This record gives sequence, C-alpha cells and structure tokens, in this order.
Amino acid sequence: MGKKIVVIGGVACGPKAAARARRRDAEARITIVERGPFVSYAGCGLPYYIGGVVEELEGLMRTSFGTVRDLLYFDKVKDIRVLTRTEAVKIDRAKKVVVVKSLESSQESELAYDQLVLATGAAPVRPPIPGMELGNVFTLRRPQEAEVIRKKIEAGEADRVCIIGAGRIGLEVAEALSNQAVETTMVDVAPQVLTGLLDADLAAMVAKMLRDEKVALYLGECVNSFAGADGKVIKVVTDKREIETDAVIVAVGVRPEVALAKDAGIELGCTGAISVDDHLRTSDPDIFAGGDCAETSSLVTGRKIWVPLGSTANRHGRVIGDNVTGGDSKFPGIVGTGVLRTLGLNVGSTGITEEKARECGHDAISCLAPSGDKSHFYPGGKQIIVKLVADKKTGKLLGGQVAGPGDVVRRLDTIASALTFGAGIDDLGNMDLCYAPPFGTAIEAVAHAANILRNKRDGLAESLGPFELKDLLAGDGDFMVLDVRGQGELTAAGKIEDRRYRHVGMEDLRASMPELPGNKPILVICQAGQRSYEAARALRGAGFREARFVDGGMSVFLRIARQ
Amino acid sequence: MGKKIVVIGGVACGPKAAARARRRDAEARITIVERGPFVSYAGCGLPYYIGGVVEELEGLMRTSFGTVRDLLYFDKVKDIRVLTRTEAVKIDRAKKVVVVKSLESSQESELAYDQLVLATGAAPVRPPIPGMELGNVFTLRRPQEAEVIRKKIEAGEADRVCIIGAGRIGLEVAEALSNQAVETTMVDVAPQVLTGLLDADLAAMVAKMLRDEKVALYLGECVNSFAGADGKVIKVVTDKREIETDAVIVAVGVRPEVALAKDAGIELGCTGAISVDDHLRTSDPDIFAGGDCAETSSLVTGRKIWVPLGSTANRHGRVIGDNVTGGDSKFPGIVGTGVLRTLGLNVGSTGITEEKARECGHDAISCLAPSGDKSHFYPGGKQIIVKLVADKKTGKLLGGQVAGPGDVVRRLDTIASALTFGAGIDDLGNMDLCYAPPFGTAIEAVAHAANILRNKRDGLAESLGPFELKDLLAGDGDFMVLDVRGQGELTAAGKIEDRRYRHVGMEDLRASMPELPGNKPILVICQAGQRSYEAARALRGAGFREARFVDGGMSVFLRIARQ
Repeated sequence: MGKKIVVIGGVACGPKAAARARRRDAEARITIVERGPFVSYAGCGLPYYIGGVVEELEGLMRTSFGTVRDLLYFDKVKDIRVLTRTEAVKIDRAKKVVVVKSLESSQESELAYDQLVLATGAAPVRPPIPGMELGNVFTLRRPQEAEVIRKKIEAGEADRVCIIGAGRIGLEVAEALSNQAVETTMVDVAPQVLTGLLDADLAAMVAKMLRDEKVALYLGECVNSFAGADGKVIKVVTDKREIETDAVIVAVGVRPEVALAKDAGIELGCTGAISVDDHLRTSDPDIFAGGDCAETSSLVTGRKIWVPLGSTANRHGRVIGDNVTGGDSKFPGIVGTGVLRTLGLNVGSTGITEEKARECGHDAISCLAPSGDKSHFYPGGKQIIVKLVADKKTGKLLGGQVAGPGDVVRRLDTIASALTFGAGIDDLGNMDLCYAPPFGTAIEAVAHAANILRNKRDGLAESLGPFELKDLLAGDGDFMVLDVRGQGELTAAGKIEDRRYRHVGMEDLRASMPELPGNKPILVICQAGQRSYEAARALRGAGFREARFVDGGMSVFLRIARQ
Repeated sequence: MGKKIVVIGGVACGPKAAARARRRDAEARITIVERGPFVSYAGCGLPYYIGGVVEELEGLMRTSFGTVRDLLYFDKVKDIRVLTRTEAVKIDRAKKVVVVKSLESSQESELAYDQLVLATGAAPVRPPIPGMELGNVFTLRRPQEAEVIRKKIEAGEADRVCIIGAGRIGLEVAEALSNQAVETTMVDVAPQVLTGLLDADLAAMVAKMLRDEKVALYLGECVNSFAGADGKVIKVVTDKREIETDAVIVAVGVRPEVALAKDAGIELGCTGAISVDDHLRTSDPDIFAGGDCAETSSLVTGRKIWVPLGSTANRHGRVIGDNVTGGDSKFPGIVGTGVLRTLGLNVGSTGITEEKARECGHDAISCLAPSGDKSHFYPGGKQIIVKLVADKKTGKLLGGQVAGPGDVVRRLDTIASALTFGAGIDDLGNMDLCYAPPFGTAIEAVAHAANILRNKRDGLAESLGPFELKDLLAGDGDFMVLDVRGQGELTAAGKIEDRRYRHVGMEDLRASMPELPGNKPILVICQAGQRSYEAARALRGAGFREARFVDGGMSVFLRIARQ
C-alpha cells in the first residue's frame, strides 16, 4: 500500500502539491479536503468574472484545455480523491489523523495520514465597522461572493458601489466595476493607494491616473460606519463625508488561516503565518505548509515575510509535492513581486520600496524614470515610469516599481530576476536585454533607470524629487526653476505658474548661461528627466554649483502637483 | 585646454560615447567624424521606414522629444563638433592624428587626438553573385538605401521583391514589404530561417507561420545569379527555380568595418572584429573601439564573439565615454540576445542554441513549451513557444528561444537576466515573477519551461522531439502514438493519419490501460505537452516502461509535419 497523503485546502497550493505528488508516486493514496464547494479554481480571476471579462464562473475552474477541474476530473485523470464541503476540524498529531466534518451531513470522521499538507489559505479581514453585517456589504475571496456581486450588478441592484481599501484587490475590483459601468467610489484610511507596494511618489501618480478615469478616490479617510435601510447598506460614513451607495466591497486585506495549525500546536512565525523551513516543513516533520497560510523569506532583506499570492502558492505546491514523496526540494524564498491592472493602467512592484529600504537602515538612492515602451519613432508606444531603489554605498539593487499604461510586466520581471541574484545597479545597467523598435529602446527602460542611479551614486547626477519641488514652490525660498523643454511641449503638457520659473529651451541653454544666476539653486526640469540631467551637467560644468535636476520631470511633477 | 577626443563613426556607439564623455568632462574638445550625411540615427528603424510604419526618414533622426539630431543640435546642445560626409582615411598612431578627407571637396586634413574612439560599424556583405551590379539590387544598411527602396515601392516600380537571406534583417524587411502589399519571396541557402538564432525545430515553426502569412519561402536554395534587362534585375535564378522580380534586397549579413584599424596595426580578434579588453581598449592604449566594429565576450561560453546590435553599441558607448574621460568602466560581455518582429510573429533568442551547446561539448537537454501569454481564462491571450537549453549534468541554463504571436520579449528578458547571473534551471523555476491574469499564468511560461527541464534532468520526464516523431512515423517501426487530447481538440487542431495512432482522452486513460500494449513504445501526445507528460507519468507508474511524451505536442508537431 502506498503512503497516505492528506492535503487540507483545495484552491492553489493544495491541488498543485497533490498533483505533483501523484506524478512522482503512483502508489500514494492522496486526499484533498476542501471546505468550499469548488476545487482548484483561479481565485485571482474573480475580479475579471465580476467585470464580465470572464463570462462564466466555470471558466475559472477549467484547465487550459477546457476540462472542468471537478471531483471526477481529479479522480479519473489524477487518481486523487477530493472531499469538498468538508471541513478539517482538528489535527491529532499523536495519532496522525485529521478529524474532518462533512458540511452537508455534519458527520465527523477521521483521515489517517503519513504526511499532511496544510494549504488552508487566507481569509479576508473583516474590520469592526458598525454596519458590517448589513445586506450588500461584501468581502471578495470565494467564487460564491463574486457570483452574488455580479448578479446584483446585472440585476441593476448595485449601480453605485463603494470599495473600502485601495490595495491590490480594491483596484482590480475598481476596473471590474468600471467595465460594468458601475459608479465607483474608493475609500482608504492610508494617505496613498497600494500602500506597501508603492512609494508615495509613484502612488500619487497612480492616484492621479485613476482620478483621470473618473474614479472618486478618497485617501486618508477613515470609515466610521455603514448606514442601512431595510437591512441593506445605503451609505458609507467616513470622518469627512457620507457616500450614498447600493453596495460595499470591503477589501482591506487578508489574514492567514492558521487556526487549525495553531490548535494542533504547530509553530506560527513572527508574521502570524505558519512557520516553515526551506523545505516548507512545519515544526512537525510530517506536516508541510504552503500557499497563503505559510510565511516565507525575503531574498532581498533575508527577513521572514508573508506575501499571499497565487504564483507563490503554486511554486510552494511543487516543492511540497516533491518533499512528501521522498524528494529533497528547497523553496529559496521570494523577492516580493506583485502586479495588477486597473483601468488601463499596469502597476507593480518587486523587492522593497524606498520607504522600506530606509526602515531597514539602507542609505537608499532612487530614481523616477519615465520611458516609452517602444522606440519613440515606432507608433503606438505607451508610457511607463520606472522607479528603482538601491543602496548607495554598495550599489546593490533593492527594489523596483513600474507603473503606466505601457508594458510594465516585462520591466518588473527583469528587475525581479536581477534581485533574485543579488544584482547591483552596474549589472542591471549592463544587461543584454531585448531590443527591436516594436518592443523598446536601444537602452532598455530598466537599464536607463539603472544608469541614472549609477550617475547618482557616482556624483554625476544631483537631483530633487517631485514632492521636494512641490514643497519648495509652496515656500518663499530663492531659487530658479529652469524648464529646458521645447516650446511645443510647454503648450502640450503645461508649465509651472510661479515667479521663480523660467523657460530656456535646451538648444539655447549654453548661449543663455551668462544670464543665469550663479548664486542660487537652479532646479532644472524637462519632460522626463533626461534633458534636465544633461542640462544640469552642462550648468555644473560651467560653474553653476547649485544646479540640480528634477527626478521624473514634468511627467511626474505635474501629475503629483495637480490633484 | 581640455583633452582632444576624436570619435570615428556617428551612428550609435560613437555619438553615445561622445555625449557621455561631454557629460563627464565639460572641458574636453570632442569631434565626431562620419562618412555619411546623417548622424545619430536609428539604423534598426530602417525596415519600419520601408514599411511605412515610420512615415518620415527624419523620424529616425529625432530625439524622443522631437529634436532632430543634426550638426547644429550636437553643437548647441552637447558642445560636440560633428563632421559629416567626412571619411577617416588613416590613423597615424605615432603622431596621434587621424587623417580625414571631406567627401565634398576631397580635401584632406589632420585631426589630433589624445584619445581616439573607433565606432566604424559594419557593412553589408555583398556576395559574389553574378548580377549584383544590376539596378534594383539593394543592400540595406544606410538611410539612403531605405529611401530609394521605399520610393521604388511607392512609385509602383517594385511590386514584387525577392529577399536574399532569411535572417533577422530579411525577416524584418519581409514584414515591411507585406505592410506595403508587395509580393514577397525569400531565398536562403541555409535549410532554415534565422540560422544561429534558432534551432531547427523552432525555426521550422517560424517558417510554417511565415508561409501561413503567404510569404514564398525557399530554404536550402542557392542563388546562382540575378538576370537583368535594360540594366535592371528581372529574375533571381536559384539552383531550383527562377523567380521573376522587380527588385532584390540582399540581406545575407554584415561584416565589421575594420580596414582603418587594421591599416593602423590595431589588433583584430579571432572573430575578425577589433579586439578589445574589458575596458573596450584596443591594442593601442589610447584607442578604444565599440559598437559593430568591435568584438565582445559571451557571458555564457566565455568565448570571444561578434554580435553587431544597436543595443550593445549603446552600452559600449557609455563605457567608452567613461574611460576616455578618466573613468574606470568595464563592459562585462553579453549573453547574446536578439529579437525581431515579422508578420505578426515575435521571435528571439538569448544565450546559445541547443546545436551550439552540443558543439561546445555540453550534454544538452531542452524542451519545447507552448504557453499562453495570459491566463487561459482571460480573453485575448496569444500563444508563445518557449525553448530552453541547459546542461544536463550541472543544470546550468545555456540559452532560450521564444517565438509566437504573443508576448515574447518579456520571456526572453527573463531568460537573458537569468543567463547573466549564471542561473541554473532550478533558479529559473523558482523565480518570483509577475503574475496577474491579464499578463500570464500563475506559473510563468519560462518557469513552466524550466520545470519541464528539471523533470527531464531528474528522470521524471522522458520525451522525444517533433522531428524524431516525424522520422519514426516515416519508418515502419512498431510503436503506438497515443493522443490524449479531448475530442473537440482533434476536430479543431487536426490529428495524425497513421495506423499506429490511437486516441484515448485523458479522462479515460487510467480506465483504458488494460487495453494498451505493454511491450512496445507508447509515444503520448497532447496539444502542448502538459497532459502527455502527465499521461506518460501515469503509464510509467502502471508499468508501461516505454512510455514517453512528445515535446511541444501537436502545437509544434503538426506545424513541423505539414510543410
């Protein structure tokens, strides 16, 4: 008889671990226990189902070749037994059994295991807001919830929706609602969108782009309560306003589902998720944990982190599938890569933010580099803005953030790959990446950004950030803002209204130098930061010792200043 | 007085080196010498100008903010003197002068240098084919040539064009001609397209996709002559046919322009290009070389290679700009990344091919992994096929090739990044890459391909290639081809007509095992290779010791078999 493998949790990591175990061990007796009615579905696809981009809920449960991954499929194709609507209520580690209860019959029974896999996932945080219990207040984690939300929208019962939380899920849902022509409001207690994923500068750009798409976005506002009528929510009450609404989607984050593990005396980590070693083994050598219920290590900081993502869950599953069948696979950790699309905007992050880098004690340098995602002479290019963060002393790359309507994932994956191998900014600047006009520029966007950081590290590029410029303009200091763009760009993209602002086109700069003030800071700005860097170099070369350029140029500054 | 820096060559590396030098040294006297009439243009954009995608030739000479990079621009903005229509005829290393000749006046003069930069580029190979001198026989390297070709097309004087050479430029030109509704024929003496960039299997797929786009593609054919009338080409005569045509574009490769360096006694490398050290210094310590005239090192093989590309030229330029101004910058080498778009197909390669890996003595393993470029449930996804090559013993990644209508560059850049850091297939399989349904699958396409290689290395996945299956089917051996796809896929994608072919859907496989032959090879095939791998595992587990799966599945096999 083969060994008994029990997997608790049937969404991502669990089924992957089970399938991998089966491919390695034809004899094993493998059982998946799942509380819900569905198994092996694409949870990340739920916003796209709400938005109608994915037509049928069943689409999220099909394989890429069209078969529905149901109990019969697992039985016939994979020889894996799946028990849905079955809750694991207790692990008896001494007896090596899991006590399970059928949610249909309420009957309990025991499943013996040789090796147990915990893939219990995560659950949405339900904040203690008065009115959470009202009708039409939803969280979004399971297919059933997505189904109810979509039906309400299609029935015309949710023409106005308020999303609480401007994080990843919140922004994905905002796009979905926009697709369904739902009037959408977002509220977040944090002063920015995508906290933790983006620094404040890039987050402000994303917020501006969302507002341009007509999303009412209220940041730094606390939701005090939901008001209802006839048992249904009709209003969101914040510390600053009341928002009339037909429904509320609460997307303020998730927490790992660890009750079962904790009750069984399995160790939790400092993140609150289940602690595992590099083989994804818990404190009990016969019990493994992976996916959203387990913590992992950051390859950037070396610290334990908890980042619940379907991609990590799948990689966890493969490693566990190996190790429960006598293999010796390690999970090396993650760099922390996340990406999303929202209202035509692609946004993502990998490694750590500048803010986090400072918290970790780094003397961090960063840049904001707007680029096109094709050669500028090739039609159809779209903008992306690349932010890189590195340690000034060592030149080690610490993280990257990319946002814009253009091809963001390509650049994030390059940065993530570089982070995986502990690359420095010199490595990144020298990388031999793809170049052809339909795909990018001869100096790839991330290499360009890395070059800016190299210039900063080497003292060739002295800059100030867009927020810093905004603050300076709000004060009454003595300096000059020198705009070196072409006349046409001023008209097209706008300029800064301030007495200290002056325009001298790049071609006239050298000739105009005698008229520029040598005794005060000259803050050079252009559209994307390239010409202003060059101009600042030329000014320094001519003796203007307080010349600096504005990181990210007008592309970033005007968006940040105008909201 | 500042140091005198002379740069010979004004296209990519030269202007970049000059601009970088200026930013680092305000005092230097910098001169660029360029034979042609244009400076700092995007040579890689010429096919797109021919195709009308780029409307004006001037578009290839503008900066991203619209200024034309002409002599005045270099003078006023960068304080760099540019001499166009000026040929460097001799380097006198003892006197440290370059003798230059004006192509307008034929007058010669001397330019003194402290540091000299050779960025002389490459020239198209003109094969000794009788008739090369005929009218309407073109090579394509310089803007002037592109202009003549486009004018002929627009004047209706080139409705039929024959391209000699199915390499990168040939394929880009094929797309351009297709955009202009020109009837296009391609001839290459090699038995495949993109020799050196792709292995035969992926090249056969690309050839099939091109033929599906109505390109007449004759491979393995030798051009014997061009026949003419009234001084103009009217026919291409190969060893197999005569092709009537209005014009010929010869794109059989380029060779480095090294005559000037060679005459001056500067060392050439084994590749025929100028030999440089890791600071891009030639055998003369005051002379640097970069771009298409210089060789570089492969980070994969450690060997000297010559790969002329605009992206490398720009990186070279930055390093040289540093080193001619007292800096200490190294160019680490390249992994060898190339990409192109042709007729809606994206194709590229990085590192070395499987064929090259074998030549270098590796026990190479490879895979062909078809994937979607979005989650399968997300609409609009397009196919890509990822081929990875690794060393079986060490697991070290050696190269990757990706082709298809989908997002190819993202995957190539990930592989290129991994190659840069000497990654193994385990590293690649574990990388924390972007995942969200609009961008890819939870297990990213390259990680999926790396996992297949890990399975092959570990003895879990025994496969055969599409050519091997084709050969077996052409013989009369005893085996079974077992197709495990769904019934609908057979109808949609086609099947194999052979007495040894049998269809058993994946869901029925385990139940059908008693009927399968235990005494002969079972070659399992599905659409993309995933199910057939799983089926082969199940068959092996049940005692069918000769079960293998077909790499790349029907996606690859049917395309290769049907042309």
